[in-house]
Parts: sequence; C-alpha cells; structure tokens
Amino acid sequence: MPVIDALTGIVGEGGVLDAAEVAKRSAGALRWDSLQAQALVRPRTTEEVSRVLRWCHDHGVAVVTQGGLTGLVHGADAAPAEVILSMERMRAIEDIDPVQRTAVVQAGVVLQTLQEAVEEHGLSFPLDLGARGSATIGGNAATNAGGNRVIRYGMTRDMILGLEAVLADGTVVSSMNHLIKNNTGYDLKQVFIGSEGTLGVITRLVLRLREKPAAQDVAIVAVADFECLPKLLKHMDQNLSGSLSAFEVMWQAFYRLVTSAPAKGKPPVSQDHPYYVLVESLGANARLDSERFVAALESALEARLISDAAVAQSENDRRAFWALRDDVAQVVAGGIPVVFDISLPISTMEQYVAALRGDLQSAIGDHKLWIFGHLGDGNLHVIVQVPLKDYLALRPKIEALVYGPLGKLGGSVSAEHGIGLEKKPYLSVCRNDSELAVMRRLKTALDPAGILNPGKIF
Amino acid sequence: MPVIDALTGIVGEGGVLDAAEVAKRSAGALRWDSLQAQALVRPRTTEEVSRVLRWCHDHGVAVVTQGGLTGLVHGADAAPAEVILSMERMRAIEDIDPVQRTAVVQAGVVLQTLQEAVEEHGLSFPLDLGARGSATIGGNAATNAGGNRVIRYGMTRDMILGLEAVLADGTVVSSMNHLIKNNTGYDLKQVFIGSEGTLGVITRLVLRLREKPAAQDVAIVAVADFECLPKLLKHMDQNLSGSLSAFEVMWQAFYRLVTSAPAKGKPPVSQDHPYYVLVESLGANARLDSERFVAALESALEARLISDAAVAQSENDRRAFWALRDDVAQVVAGGIPVVFDISLPISTMEQYVAALRGDLQSAIGDHKLWIFGHLGDGNLHVIVQVPLKDYLALRPKIEALVYGPLGKLGGSVSAEHGIGLEKKPYLSVCRNDSELAVMRRLKTALDPAGILNPGKIF
Repeated sequence: MPVIDALTGIVGEGGVLDAAEVAKRSAGALRWDSLQAQALVRPRTTEEVSRVLRWCHDHGVAVVTQGGLTGLVHGADAAPAEVILSMERMRAIEDIDPVQRTAVVQAGVVLQTLQEAVEEHGLSFPLDLGARGSATIGGNAATNAGGNRVIRYGMTRDMILGLEAVLADGTVVSSMNHLIKNNTGYDLKQVFIGSEGTLGVITRLVLRLREKPAAQDVAIVAVADFECLPKLLKHMDQNLSGSLSAFEVMWQAFYRLVTSAPAKGKPPVSQDHPYYVLVESLGANARLDSERFVAALESALEARLISDAAVAQSENDRRAFWALRDDVAQVVAGGIPVVFDISLPISTMEQYVAALRGDLQSAIGDHKLWIFGHLGDGNLHVIVQVPLKDYLALRPKIEALVYGPLGKLGGSVSAEHGIGLEKKPYLSVCRNDSELAVMRRLKTALDPAGILNPGKIF
Repeated sequence: MPVIDALTGIVGEGGVLDAAEVAKRSAGALRWDSLQAQALVRPRTTEEVSRVLRWCHDHGVAVVTQGGLTGLVHGADAAPAEVILSMERMRAIEDIDPVQRTAVVQAGVVLQTLQEAVEEHGLSFPLDLGARGSATIGGNAATNAGGNRVIRYGMTRDMILGLEAVLADGTVVSSMNHLIKNNTGYDLKQVFIGSEGTLGVITRLVLRLREKPAAQDVAIVAVADFECLPKLLKHMDQNLSGSLSAFEVMWQAFYRLVTSAPAKGKPPVSQDHPYYVLVESLGANARLDSERFVAALESALEARLISDAAVAQSENDRRAFWALRDDVAQVVAGGIPVVFDISLPISTMEQYVAALRGDLQSAIGDHKLWIFGHLGDGNLHVIVQVPLKDYLALRPKIEALVYGPLGKLGGSVSAEHGIGLEKKPYLSVCRNDSELAVMRRLKTALDPAGILNPGKIF
C-alpha cells in the first residue's frame, strides 16, 4: 500500500492505521457503524500535518480531519478511498498565561481536559457542552460549537483569539494572535472557524480565558404561557445584567421525561406546568449575587411571569438541576429519536411549535415529541421519537415537517451542530443562492483541488 | 463626462457630484485636505449600489466606499481617477425589534442616531466611540470598530448578526441573519467585517441589541506601580464579574494634560500618581451594584492595588470622569501629534513603554509623549507630539520606534483603527507572509478585477 508507506514515512512507525484497523474503530458518539478509510494517520506536529496534506494533495487523495467524533451531523464521515487525519496525538496544552488570560493548545486537546487545566489557575474556559469529555478544541472550532452558556460567553468563535491552520496544499498559515484587539487586515481565523474542515486543518489555537466565577445561582422555574418566556428572559437579563449565563427552556413533555422513572431525576417543581426554565447566574460575590438572583425571581413571580420556582440551595441541587436539562439520553428508550437543532426568532416559536405538533399528529402515526433548548439564543432542540420499524420511512417526512417552515420564519436548520452530510439537503432552507455562490468561491480559493472533507456542507 | 452621466442614470438627478464639487468637501475628521475623485455617487438602495458597482466593474473604474469619514488611517482616501460611493443617503433604520432585540439598518445610519433610537425601546447598542456623532454603522462594520466597552461587549464584529453586501461585480449577497446561533455553512459576514471596503460594499446590517443597563458606577483610581495594573484588572473582573464595562488607563502625563488648564477637566484625585484608571460597571440594580463596586474598590485599596480613588456620586460626576478620558483633543495644542493605536500583551507593556520613552529621548529632540488606552483589551493609544517644523522629518522615525518592537512582543500595529494606507508599510510587523498570501487569495476570489478600495491594507 503506497499510501500507508508514504504516510508512515511522515509520521513514523505506529502512526498510521490501515483500512482493516480503521474498520475496528467506532464511527463515533451515538453511532452503531464503524469508521472507514484507506488509512488513518496520526501526526504529532503541525509540520507533520503539513507534510501529510502535501502528499495527499499531490496524489489527489481526499482527507477528512477527525477530532473527538462527537459531531451529530456526519460532518467527519470518511469514504473508503479517503484518508482520515486524526488529531488524537496532538493533545498538548502548550501554555496557560494567567496574566494575559490565554491558553495555547494543539487542536486535539479534549475540552474537559482544558477546562480542568485552566481552573487550576483560577480561570475558566467557558465553552461547555455534553460531549466535553470527548470533544476536542479543534473540533469545537471547526464546527463553531455552542453549548450551554452562549447567552453570556458566545459561541466557540468568540473564545478564539488566534489559530494555526494548514491549507489543502500543505501551506501552514500561522495566525496565532494573543490579543483581544488586532485590526490588521482580514481576520483569517474567522474563515476557518465553523468551516467544518473544508477550508483547512486547524492545528493549534490561542484561546481567551475568563475569570473563574466565584458564585453560581441556579433555579428551575415554571411558566404558564409561552408569551411569558421572552418576557421572563428580558426580565432576568435586565435584573441580572452581565451575570445571566443560562436560560434553558423545557417543554412539559421533556420535563416529565427527565423527572420520571426510569430517569433518575426528581421534579423540583410539579410536573403540571406547560414550560420550565433553568435559569443560571454566574457571578462574583456569593451573598450579593444570590440576593439579586432571588429578588429577580420574586419580582418575576409578582409580575406573574413565573408560576413557581425552586432555587438550588446547595452544590448538589445545582448539579441535580443541570442534570435534568442534560439528561437527553432518556429519549432513546422505547424508540428511535430523530434529533433536531434549529433556531428561529422567539416571536415565531410558539406558532411554529403548535403547527409542528399538528403536522406531526396528522402526518406521522405513533410518535413522541420532546422540545427543549437554549431559548436565550433562539435555539431549540426538537426530538421526534418513532418506533424502530418505522424509522427509515418516517425520517424524511419528519425532516420535511421540521425544516420546511423555517425558511419563511427566518429560522435556521442548524443552530450549533453544523451541516455535515446530514443537513446538506436542507441548507437551502436558510441560505440563498448568492450566499452559496460566495461559499463556493471561498472553497475554490483555499482548496482548489477539493481534497478537504469533500462533499460536506454543500 | 460619461461617468457622471452613467451614474446619474442609476441614482437620479442630484445623486452625483462631479470632481469640482467633490473637491469642495473635507477629506474628513482631523484632516485639512479635500476629497478628490472623478465623481461621488449617492445611492439610496442596495439595488442602486449594485448597479453602480456593476457599471464601474464593467468600465474598470475603481470605487472607494465612504461612510462618516472619521477613520484615522486613510482607509477611505480616493484618488482623482476613482469614484467615491457615499452611503450618506442610506440612513434608514428599517426596524427595531424589542422582542428579538435586533435592529435592521442601512449602512449609512450614524452610530449615535442608532444608539438614541434603540434607547427609546429600553435597549442599548453598546458600540461607543468618540466619533459617534459622524461615524456610520457601515463604516464601523467595515473597520470592525472597537471603542470604550470592548471589554464587556466586544468589537463591532460581535454586535453584527447579519449583513448584506454587494460584491465588486454588482452581485448582491444577502445574509441578513437575525439569529444568535446559525451554523449553516460559512459565516460570510465575517469576511466582510473589518475588510475596510476591499471585499464588498456593506449596504444593510442586522445588529444585536442588549438590555439598557439600569445602573452605572464609575471611578477614577490612582495606581502606584505598573505591575498593579493587571492585578487590579483581574481583581475588578473577578469582583464585578460580567458588569465590568471599562478599564481605561491613563499614564501620568496624559492625566495631567486633561486635568490642567487649558483643558476644562479638574483632577478627581491628585496629579502625583504614575497611573490612573477609569473603571466602570454597567449593571442592573443601582443599590446592589454600587455596593459591590465600592466593596471591590475598598478591597483593592486594602490590597494596595490602588493608592487613591474617587467614585462618581452623580450623573455629572460620571460625565466629568469620562470627559477626562475622552478629552484627546488637548494633544493638538502646541505641536503636531502622531497618533498610534497599538496593542500588545499586558505582561510586555511596562518594558515596551520604558524602552519607547528612552528611544524617543535619544532619537527625537523636543517632543511630548502621552499614553492612555483600553488596558483591559491590551490596547494603548500612544501620542507623540512634535513641533510643526519637525513633523515631516520626524514622523517616519517615530513610527519606526513605536512599531519596530511590536513584532517580537506579539503586538499589533493596529488594535482598532485598521490599516488603510497609513499603516500599510508596517503590516508585516504583525502579519506573516502566509497570512498575507491568504488575504490576497480572498481578495482575488471576491474582487478579481481589484476595483474595490484599491491599494488599501496590502
């Protein structure tokens, strides 16, 4: 196998897996299939990534970069004739600077590893999501991951100061800026962030760190009407100002699912309300922040924006409240879930959900519908569960019902998961021809031979 | 004049100025020269912008887009053979949505006009800078303007959800996203933001609005040693958490300048300290936030991070404290100022300033040096004033002394002002060849004929 030999020549013995070895590996989180590729190469340095890409470019071999394999849209799937470039040996945390409040990492560093390393310095890397134990920083960057605290800290894009990327032809573009402000020409990192591995391979990053919050207040509140939700969001934002860090809404069915057996969670407030919100404040002064947090909830109660509230009284409570929101695994019991990650203007959400509920009832037989999400960001996760036997037939119908109305409403078929292969057929719901044409111009400019993650996005 | 006729045919009578009329207009803020161009065209709609660009593209005429002419780096200068595309008739605020908390504007809207319009809805557009009364939102976007509250709200880039741009050939790229999260393919707006009019003409924008803060606390504090400054920043950030909104440092000479006659300002604390910081918190609850703010200053005093502090007790005080920081106009008395906008890692700042002070003393004769800036963002404004008679001879020497050391320190020759023509010779101080090559690839991809703002940046 000339590919194996050539790649081994670059990364050394033991650095390359052949097709048979690749096939022994899982395709990733929530997947029952195996990886496939003619080879999987594991470089240790940017220089090795560069040489691998140059070789593949010269030989017309397509390359799919893989991080922690926690993506949900088949964005890192490889075909049998392609080469997988795995970042699993590029896991160095090169530097943590507590004065400049930056971290320099190789792209293969696992999110949770970094979170824990910076906490030792009294700092925080505020990106957080369920896959934190496997997802890599490079993958977070390539997909512009969102997560639980976007309302306060933004998406991954907002946490990256600089990066180094290797272009398809092996050219290393080092743009390792450490500064918050640097208006010297085009901000190249923006081109690579969120491009799902199609424009370059991100090898190293400079990340912005924040002070570690000294206080955390969490409550689960019940809400009687949808129209109270945006009012409550505005109320909490006004009253907590910069410390509001999560506003996670759960529709009743989802709340009941995660607070009833076989789920381990218990309901902090009764299960009879139509909506529930997990509200969080991350602050600096435990006494003053808690006083402010409780006062904000009390005035929300007086204004009838909420019907009931349970405020976490301990670290255990805080963990238990978050565990409810995060217990998405319950949706796999009793059927196959079709998972969506959409966003739409808050003013259109109630009408959208009501119409979807009706459409599913009339067009799909036996099913369950759960909705929850980051309402503060306009982002809903919609999960439709159907019986295993109907899954393949129903999935396209369900996708059409969920995605179809989003275009007119100014919504998005992917708030934070990306496009990959899975959402490619629906990209045109929220992107017009002129946008797609510019995307293609950028792709052609940076990867004219089209060897990087071919077929993904568009 | 075929240009005048053709452009008049697109935008109508009165929409085009000829070369003589153009020459009657000032070249902009702090400029003593006049505009020059073969024509200045004032479209009212995106469609007209598109037709103007298509005509210019077909006829090989270069186009320079102009907003409020408040830029400081000659980024919107036009040559006699070029056409100026002025956004002065595109000043519509099309929509303010208080639920989604977005504004839709044409690019020619003046920053202050927008600030005031959204405040009527209890909201805030948090970009703020001295030129607010003339600068346009389109210009802010094209240059990724920074300003006074980057530490909390980010740069202009962070406040834009979507935009519409016209490419050099007249193609309209509408990417008017209203959503905080939308990971559907490349985030095209990032390419246009901060590109200084070289990749497309931004015609309309969707802006993210914030809740209007209900409380504002401001103090001027004195600091004895440079090494206390990053510690104080960290202390205030930890203790104010998300509400810290400004951390503006003034070196002694600048503080004396703006608190002594002929300046109108009075010193809130004595003039004998080496450093002063304007600290601001924007919060939600006047009582609790003030309590927290004062407690943070008291503990800073106890920890000897600050030597003295004056806390604003009234709206008049708050305005007066900010007026000191903003009274940059004092630097024009008694000589010609050379104004710099650099950023560098905080840990290198003291050494950099000491070396610069020495270099200026040995290489430049009679001069004054003032330093102040957004230390929380690593951004310093350095002003070197020299006698009028020496200005032309000394300016290149001063630039070399200020910019020269930045490369090794990981600094930037432009934190927020951009590159334009003025800093083009120094771009390579902080951008390497591979970065410049990618910038050129992007330019070629979007403006292959090179008609948009030619010669700017690189």
